[in-house]
Amino acid sequence: MSKKTIHFGGMIHGVGSTTDGWRHPDIDATASTNLDFYKARAQLAEKGLFDFVFIADGLYISEKSIPHFLNRFEPMTLLSTLAAVTENIGLVGTFSSTYTDPFTLARQLMSLDHLSNGRAGWNLVTSPQAGVAKNYNNRALPPHHERYKIAQEHLDVVRGLWQSWEADAFIRDKETGTYFNPDKFHQLNYEGEYFQVAGPLNIGRSKQGEPLIFQAGSSEDGRAFAAANAEAIFTHASSLEKAKEFYDDIKKRAKEQGKNPDNIKVYPGISPLVGDSLEDAEAQYQAYAKLTPIEHAVRYLARYFDDYDFSRYDLDAPFPELGEIGKNAFRSTTDYIKQRAKEKNQTLRQVALEQAVPRPQFIGTAEDVADEIQRWFEAEAIDGFIISADIPHSFERFVDEVIPILQARGIYRTEYPGTTLREQVGVPITE
Amino acid sequence: MSKKTIHFGGMIHGVGSTTDGWRHPDIDATASTNLDFYKARAQLAEKGLFDFVFIADGLYISEKSIPHFLNRFEPMTLLSTLAAVTENIGLVGTFSSTYTDPFTLARQLMSLDHLSNGRAGWNLVTSPQAGVAKNYNNRALPPHHERYKIAQEHLDVVRGLWQSWEADAFIRDKETGTYFNPDKFHQLNYEGEYFQVAGPLNIGRSKQGEPLIFQAGSSEDGRAFAAANAEAIFTHASSLEKAKEFYDDIKKRAKEQGKNPDNIKVYPGISPLVGDSLEDAEAQYQAYAKLTPIEHAVRYLARYFDDYDFSRYDLDAPFPELGEIGKNAFRSTTDYIKQRAKEKNQTLRQVALEQAVPRPQFIGTAEDVADEIQRWFEAEAIDGFIISADIPHSFERFVDEVIPILQARGIYRTEYPGTTLREQVGVPITE
Repeated sequence: MSKKTIHFGGMIHGVGSTTDGWRHPDIDATASTNLDFYKARAQLAEKGLFDFVFIADGLYISEKSIPHFLNRFEPMTLLSTLAAVTENIGLVGTFSSTYTDPFTLARQLMSLDHLSNGRAGWNLVTSPQAGVAKNYNNRALPPHHERYKIAQEHLDVVRGLWQSWEADAFIRDKETGTYFNPDKFHQLNYEGEYFQVAGPLNIGRSKQGEPLIFQAGSSEDGRAFAAANAEAIFTHASSLEKAKEFYDDIKKRAKEQGKNPDNIKVYPGISPLVGDSLEDAEAQYQAYAKLTPIEHAVRYLARYFDDYDFSRYDLDAPFPELGEIGKNAFRSTTDYIKQRAKEKNQTLRQVALEQAVPRPQFIGTAEDVADEIQRWFEAEAIDGFIISADIPHSFERFVDEVIPILQARGIYRTEYPGTTLREQVGVPITE
Repeated sequence: MSKKTIHFGGMIHGVGSTTDGWRHPDIDATASTNLDFYKARAQLAEKGLFDFVFIADGLYISEKSIPHFLNRFEPMTLLSTLAAVTENIGLVGTFSSTYTDPFTLARQLMSLDHLSNGRAGWNLVTSPQAGVAKNYNNRALPPHHERYKIAQEHLDVVRGLWQSWEADAFIRDKETGTYFNPDKFHQLNYEGEYFQVAGPLNIGRSKQGEPLIFQAGSSEDGRAFAAANAEAIFTHASSLEKAKEFYDDIKKRAKEQGKNPDNIKVYPGISPLVGDSLEDAEAQYQAYAKLTPIEHAVRYLARYFDDYDFSRYDLDAPFPELGEIGKNAFRSTTDYIKQRAKEKNQTLRQVALEQAVPRPQFIGTAEDVADEIQRWFEAEAIDGFIISADIPHSFERFVDEVIPILQARGIYRTEYPGTTLREQVGVPITE
């Protein structure tokens, strides 16, 4: 078996995840619907031998949403277009198990997997925002725990449909007139509490068998679901210690389920910022952060708490006690925000600014950033990182400057191991 | 105003719409999931200055389905990939108003419209096959008339969502920090019998305003719906007289609705077959048709009649009296089949073979085919044709041999009039 190396994915996120970052002079303010921007990023990530590009998503906006959310490409169509302009990099999109039909989603993902020669991945989310229901016939957002029950059935249907045809089902013998082997063609006939789907699916298996399953929940329900189902996990890690705790927990849960823990990869998201010096990088961050006024930062924070109205609180008083608020939305994020505010005695202003324009944890020269990545990797706290780089030039500098250092140190690959997403990530191709 | 010319669209349909055509030595038996095949066809259609490529679809298969239906690309993903490898040709996909969520469909189509710089089109179908319900939580297929009521609401929601943002809503002024003009941002708040959708949509208008609406129903409900809603119609025409009747009827209905009849284009589907001589073309047809045994032809016919069991009937007795059977499925097609069998005193064998491998109406030398096209065009029976060409080489020969003749005669364009689908079709860009 080849030596273990670090892995990267690349989040591509238009004008970025802040309220005001788009005002930076070096940002293309049209990026969220500019195919040239996405194409350049995807090709750069491919040059950097990343496992995949990753497209986040949301299904509900209001006039208070950040610019990127208001006007952006839909992930399935975007990834299908990127399939034509890339060759080896995986294409991972975010799709909801609460607000999609499993037959349609199974089919679109498998079709993308064929169109890309085996590079599709599904980041399964349960859609945490209450407003989404208003766009889907008022099908109310189920409680957090039930959303994961629905997710389990949805995924079971999708994976069941993906096995409608065995890998060698299509014979296409012109002489005998045999197009397929009926013994390798299966009806699903799924009858669950939430879904009833007969199948079969009208597309066969792909070069990598079937799309890779990503999951991003970090709550108790989310971790249990991920360990049972996911092949890769997108998570947040505020420190090396917390990352290590999460990593060990997921691998232990996987083992308890009788799975090979190596086949569930853990990728925290980071926003590395490379400068000519630490001071230069700091200055880049400050120039970016100062674009966001405090009112916008508070509004951004509110989104995690179901658009909670924070205006009644003093900005410079301790962060308020919120009780159950936020528990049914982005639970792991809101739990973390509450706990951290308490631990650090933060004010509302501090919490809001920290959330709206987080200070990069991996910051400094290219050597500094490479050192920190290596430290996390050698501590066995991660399998890889998802690089999210809103600050201008930070994505380019990561690929052009940090990657070669990691390669020189022998902890990053110098070529793609294969052509499918499963090969790039290092999990088995499904039979 | 420029002189009226004929228009073409190109159906791309993998291994073809017959049960056994894939066995032809010159057919790529993997075509239905081979991107290279679709790419080559789309690029050839673009070379031929076609208005659009057209992707048909279905949401249910059984082991009795024809090969192309068993294993094929999903249209949204396929068209998004083709967007990256074509420049001017429209991209029209078939999507169901009965089995999609309007928010998701509106968003994917508008995203495709942005990714292709204004080339997306939606062929709205109401999903005639009863089996589809089994793949969608047993949401029973509503009766024919009600499906059109649902379709009307669905389309009203989709078009309403497409108007969430006015064309000049996004300002993106970095100086003032104004990303959009809130006066040009609209909430839909649709409350219908079948759909409740608040919006707004999280993507703005495209270069052509919004995707073009195609419709394919030819029943009374279908015609009424098309005249009220469609911008282009895909129809069948068994003769010039029938085509003229349909064309005049649609234009008259459009006028009665207060619409400009020029803004609803009528495209019958044809399968032109070009040979070195009429005899050569006939021989090509016979070589193709003889691949299909009569049992397969009957099975193919049965699909239009909700998989009706024809095996109880004598193949060489007159076509049986079927009463209401087929009325809730492909109604206009089954009505036509029944009527024609009666008029022509056809046997079951004749009907089945005629349906399974229709003899091309436009057949002969390139001059012959061009003559016939010109005759229909000059009779004002059509605005254009959708070219469906299952027989090997027929698509290539149409583009390479027939198109130049029509151009020389001054009834076909020699360059694209614009870059968007609406410009190629010749209907207004929506404000």
